Amino acid sequence: MLPDMSLEEAVAKGPYDAVVLPGGLKGAENIAQSATVKSLLEEQEKAGRVIGAICAAPAVSLAGIGIGQGKKMTCYPSLKDKLTGSGKHTFVDEKVVVDGQFITSQGPGTAFDFGLALVEKLEGSEKRASTAKAMLLQ
Amino acid sequence: MLPDMSLEEAVAKGPYDAVVLPGGLKGAENIAQSATVKSLLEEQEKAGRVIGAICAAPAVSLAGIGIGQGKKMTCYPSLKDKLTGSGKHTFVDEKVVVDGQFITSQGPGTAFDFGLALVEKLEGSEKRASTAKAMLLQ
Ligand SMILES: [Cu+]
Repeated sequence: MLPDMSLEEAVAKGPYDAVVLPGGLKGAENIAQSATVKSLLEEQEKAGRVIGAICAAPAVSLAGIGIGQGKKMTCYPSLKDKLTGSGKHTFVDEKVVVDGQFITSQGPGTAFDFGLALVEKLEGSEKRASTAKAMLLQ
Repeated sequence: MLPDMSLEEAVAKGPYDAVVLPGGLKGAENIAQSATVKSLLEEQEKAGRVIGAICAAPAVSLAGIGIGQGKKMTCYPSLKDKLTGSGKHTFVDEKVVVDGQFITSQGPGTAFDFGLALVEKLEGSEKRASTAKAMLLQ
């Protein structure tokens, strides 16, 4: 993944309609250790704006730092215990789980479903349908 | 897409077990205009090594420059006429088509199937199955 700008530059240009966290265990751990990301996510959650996370990220980068407490989420299935470890998050075994402002998904093979769920949340179901059609996702 | 090296450097390090062409109409047109790519593909075809192409690439970057004549292929469905225009390629409306050394696929939504078909061709069906499982593609 090639960043367009540094995290600090990106935060300065915010706020954003959505903050989306990619997977990858090591990357998700690094993200979870960033105080800048933590305060970005806390502000995003407080303001009710969309937070997306896939693969390792829901367990490691959200639940791991106390974001989305009380919410239903999914993640890479082998990380289920990490997601539910604090007792404050509920694991749901579906490709994509939408609970309020939180959109989570399981892994590489569910990435298109995740992307379409984000499109639907941000742009509506017609845009989701036209995007899916153009990408041959039907 | 961020290249690891220039085309000239890459060609100098070859030959490769597989040459895979990404989609995107404009990119596929640029690729079709490269004499370096043309000779790379001609050598790859002559040697019987794998050639993969997805989305616009089968029609524009393979059929468009005379590669894979006599072969069954698929491509982004709206480019079917471009694929079959010279009368030397047969369009098959499936997510992935394997005909000898050629592996072709339709578009973004079929990219995982395409990737797994390449894995199977290069590394066998067990590797395909384990890759699919780890990526939650079952
Ligand atoms: Cu991952």
